[in-house]
Amino acid sequence: MKSAKIGLAGFGTVGAGVVEGLTTHADIMASRIGIRPTLGGIADLDIETDRGIAVDADILTTDAFGMIDDPEIAIIVELIGGTGIAKEIVCRALRAGKAVVTANKALLAEHGDELFSLVNETGSNLYFGASVGGGIPIIRALQESFVVNQFRGLRGILNGTCNYILTRMETEHLPFDEALQEAQEAGFAEADPTLDINGFDTAHKAAILARLAYGISVPMDTICVEGIRGLAAEDIAYASDLGYRIKLLAILASHDKTVEVRIHPALVPKQHMLASVNGAFNAVMVEGDFLGSGMLYGQGAGQKPTASTVLGDIGDALRDCSSGMHRTLPTPSDDAPPLCDIENIVTRYYLRVNVLDKPGTLSRVSSILGEHGISIDSVMQKTEEHQGEHVPVVIVTHGAQEGNITHAVRLIDEADIVGAPTVRLRIEQ
Amino acid sequence: MKSAKIGLAGFGTVGAGVVEGLTTHADIMASRIGIRPTLGGIADLDIETDRGIAVDADILTTDAFGMIDDPEIAIIVELIGGTGIAKEIVCRALRAGKAVVTANKALLAEHGDELFSLVNETGSNLYFGASVGGGIPIIRALQESFVVNQFRGLRGILNGTCNYILTRMETEHLPFDEALQEAQEAGFAEADPTLDINGFDTAHKAAILARLAYGISVPMDTICVEGIRGLAAEDIAYASDLGYRIKLLAILASHDKTVEVRIHPALVPKQHMLASVNGAFNAVMVEGDFLGSGMLYGQGAGQKPTASTVLGDIGDALRDCSSGMHRTLPTPSDDAPPLCDIENIVTRYYLRVNVLDKPGTLSRVSSILGEHGISIDSVMQKTEEHQGEHVPVVIVTHGAQEGNITHAVRLIDEADIVGAPTVRLRIEQ
Repeated sequence: MKSAKIGLAGFGTVGAGVVEGLTTHADIMASRIGIRPTLGGIADLDIETDRGIAVDADILTTDAFGMIDDPEIAIIVELIGGTGIAKEIVCRALRAGKAVVTANKALLAEHGDELFSLVNETGSNLYFGASVGGGIPIIRALQESFVVNQFRGLRGILNGTCNYILTRMETEHLPFDEALQEAQEAGFAEADPTLDINGFDTAHKAAILARLAYGISVPMDTICVEGIRGLAAEDIAYASDLGYRIKLLAILASHDKTVEVRIHPALVPKQHMLASVNGAFNAVMVEGDFLGSGMLYGQGAGQKPTASTVLGDIGDALRDCSSGMHRTLPTPSDDAPPLCDIENIVTRYYLRVNVLDKPGTLSRVSSILGEHGISIDSVMQKTEEHQGEHVPVVIVTHGAQEGNITHAVRLIDEADIVGAPTVRLRIEQ
Repeated sequence: MKSAKIGLAGFGTVGAGVVEGLTTHADIMASRIGIRPTLGGIADLDIETDRGIAVDADILTTDAFGMIDDPEIAIIVELIGGTGIAKEIVCRALRAGKAVVTANKALLAEHGDELFSLVNETGSNLYFGASVGGGIPIIRALQESFVVNQFRGLRGILNGTCNYILTRMETEHLPFDEALQEAQEAGFAEADPTLDINGFDTAHKAAILARLAYGISVPMDTICVEGIRGLAAEDIAYASDLGYRIKLLAILASHDKTVEVRIHPALVPKQHMLASVNGAFNAVMVEGDFLGSGMLYGQGAGQKPTASTVLGDIGDALRDCSSGMHRTLPTPSDDAPPLCDIENIVTRYYLRVNVLDKPGTLSRVSSILGEHGISIDSVMQKTEEHQGEHVPVVIVTHGAQEGNITHAVRLIDEADIVGAPTVRLRIEQ
């Protein structure tokens, strides 16, 4: 049986999972792929710490570039992360004609154009299945299975930390800060959870999905990114009463001439498949003109699920190297559709308005909405009457344009009947 | 851009979907694959009937073998189905060095050993992504994404007809025959639905999954296949009261030295992801030692979803042909684990016993169960008292061995306190 040597750059948590797979599962991989993977090198600044997996000391090095230059190594696996040294390693390996496997979402999201062009110029291959969704094979599905489809839309729960927090807030009626602390204690959130809870991690993944589904480049500063920090427990409870769960969604949708990309918490009907995705799990729902509706669900992060996908990509790299296959990557064409301005999107809205509990206030709010072409689907006032005090009123609108909602909410919040800023959340059907 | 010619054998419903994809979506496929697919031939006994898609008359032929022999055609797509002429076409094309794409589950399930060996001998390639799950990329995930995983188990809802019938029985409280008739009228069931409702279609798909997940050959006559015909509406209702939905499942599980493959209706807890798979949708839940839990969900049949997966496979074939890649297929090794005898499986059971409503009968039933090492988790008697009449009593057991249940149920049914055969359903947690 043929074999090929793999060089790993980055011996962290996922790296150790990949080494474990290549060490303990080499036989099963070889029988399925038809080519035996062997580990030819591991580069990391720290080659002393025990990662809990036995490794031949001879293959450990602090010199990643030396490993790339080793003619015996055909495949470089980059698991360092970030856009600094990781980018240098990936680019140098591609230029050296090596196949590169990476799980680096920031790198793909921020430098996708450059990397895809480099792949096509050099004739090397780049595999990035683990950059979105951990153990979920969504990248492969988009690149290979769904290749005929024009996508009406993709909606993803792509961050396990946020989904864990939201699930705990709903099921245990916890405030955000307590749910976050619990997530940190349970190992589902980093000590600094900013990238996760502010939505940037999800935005990186959405940019990669948008590139594959729509052939577009999505600069991070051009899209709507709203995280879950500060989401109020009462909105989760009101949403539940209305038959919804709140999820942090990446939403991609194609329109006539534009593509919509946005990341924000959204109300999802409880009977929708995405509403059943709880805890640290992730899922992506795909709507295509051929496939119809589909969903891929699984563990979106973690050592072994991520290593599972990296090792799947290594399988591809082994096969492709042995036959000299070059996989071209699609680069944005001149007629790629532009991004839709968030002000132009049309969706339904959940508004929690804090109004004085006296006659006429609701009619004032609804007349402001009406003047902006926003029609009301339902109104819910849960608390008892408190004549003269501010009480929350929850309004669900029919489909309305974001720009109109923004303007109407500003006028509502400026009115003297309102005691606190209106909470506005989007509803995804 | 490179291009390659495709010959289609079988211009039926899915075939017409594939032709539509190759005709109207050739640009998008070419931009994603890097190689342009072109349709070089369509072979069918009927080349007169309008399929609703414009086709160049020159490429229509009734001579499938002539099309295979055409040196310009690199890829043969077999969409005839069955194990007769379809098998001849597939084998002849493989021997001629062509890449073959097929959606033929019966062929793969019944002749997998022969076909996989032929692929490895000839160095040709065989793609069969659409043989299981229609638009769901489960075959690709098993062959490529999850390549490192040892699978604890797979559980699939693999037949849309059955799932539609079961969903309607539950939500509309319909008896089986009415739900079947409705499914036929809605186009979700064939005029002769035997293969679907008796579980054989699901069994074929389970055999293909077992081959890929466990490297084993599963002859159809060696496994437990129970369909949904005759499932009583009252059992669906009782199951619902107990917090379960009944689904027709393909269950694959690995044990120390054996692999379990069985197809039968099973009670699934309502909060389980598989319980949310309703109507004609399909899903496969996969448990792997690396990936953890994952589920792929989507439209398991139908023209366009199936064509979507066939066209994904055509994309592979285009790439592989251009680089000369041969994908070896794993054939069962001498140390492949044997199938587990159904009598030896251990699971929980739902029993509906029809006993005389008089003191002492339940104790007699439970003592028979106890003598067989079967312990009771709960007992439910829904109907009011009818002293001296037969009434249904629903018993849920703890984990018990199938052989013991079979023997105990036989003794219960022989007892003079029982008025009708006991209904026995397995519970899947």
